[in-house]
Amino acid sequence: MRVTDVVITPVAFRDPPLLNAVGVHQPYALRTVIEVNTADGVTGLGETYGDAPVVAGLRDLAARMPGLDVFDLAGLRRLVRQTSAAGSARSPLDGRSRAAQVLYSAFEVALLDAQGKALGRPVVDLLGGRFRDEVPYSAYLFYKWAAHPGGPEDDWGPALDAESIVAQAKRMVAEYGFTAIKLKAGVLAPRQECEAIHALADAFPGLPLRIDPNTAWSVPTSIEVSRRLAGVLEYLEDPTPGIAGMAAVAAQAEMPLATNMCVVAREHLPPAVAQRAVGVLLSDHHFWGGLRHTQQLGELCDTFGIGLSMHSNSHLGISLAAMTHVAAATEHLTYACDTHFPWKTEDVVEPGPLRFEDGSVRVPSAPGLGVTIDRDALARLHEQWRHSGIRTRDDVTPMRAVHPEWTGSLPRF
Amino acid sequence: MRVTDVVITPVAFRDPPLLNAVGVHQPYALRTVIEVNTADGVTGLGETYGDAPVVAGLRDLAARMPGLDVFDLAGLRRLVRQTSAAGSARSPLDGRSRAAQVLYSAFEVALLDAQGKALGRPVVDLLGGRFRDEVPYSAYLFYKWAAHPGGPEDDWGPALDAESIVAQAKRMVAEYGFTAIKLKAGVLAPRQECEAIHALADAFPGLPLRIDPNTAWSVPTSIEVSRRLAGVLEYLEDPTPGIAGMAAVAAQAEMPLATNMCVVAREHLPPAVAQRAVGVLLSDHHFWGGLRHTQQLGELCDTFGIGLSMHSNSHLGISLAAMTHVAAATEHLTYACDTHFPWKTEDVVEPGPLRFEDGSVRVPSAPGLGVTIDRDALARLHEQWRHSGIRTRDDVTPMRAVHPEWTGSLPRF
Repeated sequence: MRVTDVVITPVAFRDPPLLNAVGVHQPYALRTVIEVNTADGVTGLGETYGDAPVVAGLRDLAARMPGLDVFDLAGLRRLVRQTSAAGSARSPLDGRSRAAQVLYSAFEVALLDAQGKALGRPVVDLLGGRFRDEVPYSAYLFYKWAAHPGGPEDDWGPALDAESIVAQAKRMVAEYGFTAIKLKAGVLAPRQECEAIHALADAFPGLPLRIDPNTAWSVPTSIEVSRRLAGVLEYLEDPTPGIAGMAAVAAQAEMPLATNMCVVAREHLPPAVAQRAVGVLLSDHHFWGGLRHTQQLGELCDTFGIGLSMHSNSHLGISLAAMTHVAAATEHLTYACDTHFPWKTEDVVEPGPLRFEDGSVRVPSAPGLGVTIDRDALARLHEQWRHSGIRTRDDVTPMRAVHPEWTGSLPRF
Repeated sequence: MRVTDVVITPVAFRDPPLLNAVGVHQPYALRTVIEVNTADGVTGLGETYGDAPVVAGLRDLAARMPGLDVFDLAGLRRLVRQTSAAGSARSPLDGRSRAAQVLYSAFEVALLDAQGKALGRPVVDLLGGRFRDEVPYSAYLFYKWAAHPGGPEDDWGPALDAESIVAQAKRMVAEYGFTAIKLKAGVLAPRQECEAIHALADAFPGLPLRIDPNTAWSVPTSIEVSRRLAGVLEYLEDPTPGIAGMAAVAAQAEMPLATNMCVVAREHLPPAVAQRAVGVLLSDHHFWGGLRHTQQLGELCDTFGIGLSMHSNSHLGISLAAMTHVAAATEHLTYACDTHFPWKTEDVVEPGPLRFEDGSVRVPSAPGLGVTIDRDALARLHEQWRHSGIRTRDDVTPMRAVHPEWTGSLPRF
C-alpha cells in the first residue's frame, strides 16, 4: 500500500491571550495538517507545529514520500535523514536540531492512520492494544487578558488573580469533568501564584494540582515555592532551567519535578537520570519522534523509576486523537495528560468522536485515528493562516507591543 | 479476530554434547511450540523454552486465551498477570520470576504471527518495517565431546583444543558464511581458551571474535584474560558474575563487556548503567517480554550508549524467524546475533525460508513470521519429548555422570 502524494496544509486558529513566562499567545495559533494519500484510496492524517521552518521541512519530506509503503516506518526514517531541512530548526535548549523527530512524527502518525484505515483497526491496536479505554486529561488554567490588544473580549474574561483562576477552573471542571488541574505560571510574582494554588486546593479538595512556570524561577525561588506548596502539588513542572538546576531543586523539594523542557530528547536522559533531576517526564509524540517512540519512552521511564505524563501545545483534533491513542497504549502513563483543548474554538476535524466525559477522552474504536477532516473547516483555517500574517509562534513580540520593556528572558524571579 | 483455542506442544530435538561452564548439553534440547487458533481460521505460531514449569505456565495461560482479540497485546499482558503460574519460575540470578516475561513473549509472537497472516503482512512490518533486509548471525563454537556417553558420535567430532576449535569454525564458516565468531568458553583453563581465540584470530584475520565463559571466571582472572585478548575481541561476554563484578572488570578491560546474565530484566538496567558494567546487551525476546519490548530495549540501549546484540539458546525455526524479524526492525542492532542453528539436525518448520547466506538470514516477506509447521516433524519431536524423559534443562547432572566430583558451581577459574 504505497503513498501516491501528500498534501501539506498550514492552518491558523483563534487563540485567546493566554499568558506565560515569556509573553502572551498571539491571536492565532499555527498548526499543519498532513494528508498522506495512497494508491488504495486511503488517506492518513497527521498534525504538527505550523512554524514556517517546520512547514518547509514537511514539504521537503512530502516530496520524497511517493512510493513509500505505509507500513515502512523504517523507510520513513531514512527519508527523514535525506531531507535537507531536517537539520534546519535548532532547539533553544541546546542548539541541536529536533526537526528530524518532528518531521518523522508528523508522518508516522499519518502512516499509522492509513495503516489502521486499510486494516479496519484503530491506531491503538497497531500500538499493541489499550491499557485503558478512557485517557484522562487535566484542566489547563492560564492567567490571561480579557482580549488581545484591539480585539474583542473572549467569553473567558480576564484572569490575573487567584479568584479569577479559581473561577476559570470551576467553569472548566464543570464543562469537562477534569479530575486534575494545572496552572501555567511564571506570570505573576511566585508568591501570588502560590496563593492561586492554595485557593485551588481549597476550592477543589483532593484534586491533584500542578504548576508550570516554564523555568521562570531561579533555583532558590524554586526551592522556596516547593516549600510553600509542600503537600499541595502532585508535581512541580519545570521550575528552573537546565538539568543541573532541576537537580538542585529536586534534591530539596518534597514533590517530584516534572519536565518537558530540560529533557526533550534521548541524549538528555542519561544526565537527567544520573543527576536525579526529574521525577516525571512530560512526553509529547510531536517532538519525541512519534507514537511508537513515545511508547518506548514510557518503557524507559518505567525502567528508571520516572513517572510519565503528557505535554501539550495548542493543538487541534488530529493531535488529540493521536495523543489519546498513544496514551491508551502506553501502560506506564502515571498522570492525567495536558491539553489546550478547552481554549480552542475552531477545528479541522468533524466534531463527535473526541468528547470529554469526566475529564477523559474515550479511545476511538473506528479505523485509524478515528477522526474525519471537515474540508470546509480546513479550507477556512488555511485561509485564516494566509491572512493572519503569522508564520512563527512568537509570544514575546505581542507582549512587547503592550510592555515595551519586556524581554521574555528567563528566569525572571 | 478472536482466539478460539491454543495448542501447546512440548518437543525434544537431538542436541550434541556441547560443553559449557556448568556442564554439558543433554542428548535432547527442549522447546515448546505454541499454536494460537482464531475464529478466522488463521493460526499464529510461537516457540519458547520447554522446561516443565514453563510448559505448565503456557498451558495455564492457554486456557485463558479464548476470546482474546489477536491485536490486544495489552489484554495478553493482563491475562499473564492473572496466570497463577506466572510467579512459579524463579531466576537463579536474583530469585525473581521471569515467567511473566517468558509467557507473555511466547504468546505475543504467536499473536503477531496471526496478525500478520490476517493482514497479509510480515511481522517485521507490524514492528515498524525493516532497517535491514538480512540479519547477520555469528558462528557459535563449542568445546564438545565426540558423543554423548553411550551414544553414537555426531559428525562434528570432538573439540577439546585450539586446533579442533579452528577446524569447527572453518566448517561452520564454510557452510554458513558467518562473518563473526563466538566461542563458548569456561570449559578449559582460561589460558587454553585464550590460545583458541588467538588461533581463530590467525585463521580468520579481520573476523570479529567473542568469548563467553558464562561467568566462569573471577574478577582477577577476567582482567587477566582481557589483557591477553586485548586487540583481538570485539567483546568479552559475561566473564564474571554480577553487575558489580562486571563493573570491576569493565573498568580495566579495553574491549566492551557484553551480557545476557547480569542484566536480564529491566530492574538490572539502572544499576548496570550507573556502574558502567556493560557495553553490549545481548537481548533475547524470549525472556525480555517479546518482540516489541526487545525493540524498546534497543531504544533504551541506544539512549544510554550501550551496544545491542542477541542471545540464543538451542532453538528451532519459529524462534529463528522471530529473532530475524525483530532484529530487522530494531535499528540499534550493533552486532551479529547469536544462534545455535548449525547444531540443530531436526526442526518443526518446513525448510526453506530461513536459509543462511553469507552468515545472514534474509527477512521473510511472507505474511506473519513466514514459517510453516511441518506437522509430521512436530508430531515426531513431540513423541521424542514423551520418550526422552527429559523435562528440564540440566547440564550439571549429565556432566556429573561422567565426572562424579563435578559441581557446576561458578566461578571456577
